Amino acid sequence: MFKKFFPASCFYLLPFFCVAQSEDSAMIKKIADEVLINGKAYENLRFLCKKIGPRLSGSPQAQKAVEATARMLMEAGADTVYLQPCMVPHWVRGIKEKGFIQVAGKPVYPLHLCSLGNSLGTGKKGVRAGVIEVRSFKELDQLGTAVIKGKIVFLNFPMNPTYIKTFRAYGESGISRWQGASKAASYGAIGTMVRSLASNEDDNPHTGAMAYNDSFPKIPAVAISTNDAEWLSKQLKLKMVVKASFTNTSAMLADTISYNVVGEIRGNEFPKEIITVGGHLDSWDLAEGAQDDGAGVMQSIEVLRVLKAVGIHPKRTIRAVMFMNEENGGRGGEKYLELAEQNKETHLFGLESDDGGFTPRGFRLEMNEPQLSKVMQWKNLFYPYGVYDMAAGESGADVGPLKKIGTLLAGLSPDSQRYFDVHHAATDVFENVSKRELHLGALNMAALIYLVDKYGL
Amino acid sequence: MFKKFFPASCFYLLPFFCVAQSEDSAMIKKIADEVLINGKAYENLRFLCKKIGPRLSGSPQAQKAVEATARMLMEAGADTVYLQPCMVPHWVRGIKEKGFIQVAGKPVYPLHLCSLGNSLGTGKKGVRAGVIEVRSFKELDQLGTAVIKGKIVFLNFPMNPTYIKTFRAYGESGISRWQGASKAASYGAIGTMVRSLASNEDDNPHTGAMAYNDSFPKIPAVAISTNDAEWLSKQLKLKMVVKASFTNTSAMLADTISYNVVGEIRGNEFPKEIITVGGHLDSWDLAEGAQDDGAGVMQSIEVLRVLKAVGIHPKRTIRAVMFMNEENGGRGGEKYLELAEQNKETHLFGLESDDGGFTPRGFRLEMNEPQLSKVMQWKNLFYPYGVYDMAAGESGADVGPLKKIGTLLAGLSPDSQRYFDVHHAATDVFENVSKRELHLGALNMAALIYLVDKYGL
Repeated sequence: MFKKFFPASCFYLLPFFCVAQSEDSAMIKKIADEVLINGKAYENLRFLCKKIGPRLSGSPQAQKAVEATARMLMEAGADTVYLQPCMVPHWVRGIKEKGFIQVAGKPVYPLHLCSLGNSLGTGKKGVRAGVIEVRSFKELDQLGTAVIKGKIVFLNFPMNPTYIKTFRAYGESGISRWQGASKAASYGAIGTMVRSLASNEDDNPHTGAMAYNDSFPKIPAVAISTNDAEWLSKQLKLKMVVKASFTNTSAMLADTISYNVVGEIRGNEFPKEIITVGGHLDSWDLAEGAQDDGAGVMQSIEVLRVLKAVGIHPKRTIRAVMFMNEENGGRGGEKYLELAEQNKETHLFGLESDDGGFTPRGFRLEMNEPQLSKVMQWKNLFYPYGVYDMAAGESGADVGPLKKIGTLLAGLSPDSQRYFDVHHAATDVFENVSKRELHLGALNMAALIYLVDKYGL
Repeated sequence: MFKKFFPASCFYLLPFFCVAQSEDSAMIKKIADEVLINGKAYENLRFLCKKIGPRLSGSPQAQKAVEATARMLMEAGADTVYLQPCMVPHWVRGIKEKGFIQVAGKPVYPLHLCSLGNSLGTGKKGVRAGVIEVRSFKELDQLGTAVIKGKIVFLNFPMNPTYIKTFRAYGESGISRWQGASKAASYGAIGTMVRSLASNEDDNPHTGAMAYNDSFPKIPAVAISTNDAEWLSKQLKLKMVVKASFTNTSAMLADTISYNVVGEIRGNEFPKEIITVGGHLDSWDLAEGAQDDGAGVMQSIEVLRVLKAVGIHPKRTIRAVMFMNEENGGRGGEKYLELAEQNKETHLFGLESDDGGFTPRGFRLEMNEPQLSKVMQWKNLFYPYGVYDMAAGESGADVGPLKKIGTLLAGLSPDSQRYFDVHHAATDVFENVSKRELHLGALNMAALIYLVDKYGL
């Protein structure tokens, strides 16, 4: 019965396995030391944030970011750097939004608000109407046209603070932003105010993509800060609110040209097998996109740099990809797949970092057995570097399309506690990134790429 | 042979163990939800930081902090709140320090510097001399009196960036601050400039305790910022530095009275068995002591609050203790032990939080088998709340003295990447604490206290 639990063949493999693990552990230590001592991700991120800044798809800054990261990839030691042209939506915010709440017998209260990405504008005249608060779509459905028609709907879906991983709360409450406008419009609303998807209470409105359902009128949608949402909800309970009004002039322009930026180190055994590591280059326009996703972009470039720096000659072709347009279209990720199919490329593995440059805790592995088991065998190699939470999960929006061609995928899971404090808000700036945290993420990503390249999957 | 690995008696215990774990898991979820929804640690910390601020032992603010935390303990639901009087050192910084480097043919360079805690002053005339850089005590020994006599020694001991847990680097480089002045004085130096013990590069000098060895002259000691240390080292290599000078008027005054603040929930089965949870109330004078250790203090009060709030009636007496004078004397911790011995108290367990209010990753357990194994059995209960790294290790400076009377000890291990960016510097302010991170620490501490109280050790 012994054999049942421990096949005899393992005995032959065991010494090899141990030697391999100790070699790998030494190489990963080398990678880690190189990143922690000489890592460039943080200084590259400073450049992206401070010299270029916000870089929404279609903006002049997005173009500058394309050029800057192409240069950084060269400096990192890529054999080849090239651009993948790709049409992207071109949304513009327009003039600074304004919004007010009129409370009985008091001066009007100015809201901290911003247009949601992709939203159409009110025009300069704005909208003005009574406000109806809902805390779920079910509540909206129950109120129906009788109550909602002609009104501004206030979608107050707080992120659930009891979820330890904040992405779960974002996923749940996120429907208010993504679908809220069309849902409210289906009952005749003339505008929506969405509570910012934020895990903290402050005055910063958080933008982010919304989408219209073509079956309903396209009404303007803005986000208000969490502090304002709490205040407004209280005033509504007191029946003190007379009217709400807001003006935004955001608009969707014609699609425009942009690029994914790709840097490669060509594999010396299986050059046609491609391993991708990436983040997205575009960012929302309210801040510097430091955590979202300047961090992931710079970590991906650092992966290439450190592999070169420690003298690894990869068997497979390693590509660092700066995807364009993750935030309001996902066109870069789609284009990357399209070209992969068109060029009949073999994509073994794709790793994405788009959850911020915080201290890493794990990887989400989007693959089946036996690949999952293979990666899990490496778990103890990551433990000294703070990564312990390796489990099946979704990878990311930009490498995600590669699933269609059978690519095995993963996503870096950094600590998520602070991400939604700054995500899509004016506070997503370089100063809110820690150098050590960012670099720890990069070195763990490099270690995973090193192992996948060495052993395959 | 089966029995060897799995004693038959375990079979009887197994169902009980499973039921117990699921009960415990439900209770810990209740604790977690309560802290994450209604936790008071963050707002209490805001008060401590913004309404009181720096609170070095012997300062009027330290006294205010004693009064404020006594009130907070009452509000948290402690049965009894009392003070433990304790004499503390009373060190004062004096006027704002000044320091300059004179470089050949250039204007003098003003340093970003501060006196080290406990250092004596130069007097208003200051010191002025040539500078000798050393990067280790060995190097200092080799240079000896011939080179060092009459000079200012620049102790440039960078924190090793390759250590993943930053406390290890702090421990190693820390000798430059703790022992550097007397070591340099033993070779005739007239002053020391210490590179700040910081994991980042910026202009903020980091203070912290130093100690004199009575066998040598007591020379003044200051810390300079990491940016200045890098710059100075470069200038010295270029042989461009003519002289360094600095002035500080810090002084050690007579000991003065202060207090530990204690809040208790009396146990209802074994009231004489005491479980302590604490942090230290004093802080350095350059900032608000938000991470060090306002965080630990507020987490400890929160432990008491949440146990009450979720309706736990502890078997043993739970004490939240705000220790005084950890930073430059450790007198509060010593006094706590002294009174425990004097009152013949039984101290079962002591838990300290003094590594910042960052996302928790683990507990360091200062205990022998079989207690260690017992705690390790609870590991899976903490995993959903981000705590996975439970291992033998040193607890903390304030509960540490209790080891003498056989108390089992533990320390909270939060993520350490950002701690030494702000530690003892002007940047250790409330704004650099995350509410969710702080509260996650508190809820894990409360869970551990709950388990120790319920099962004993």
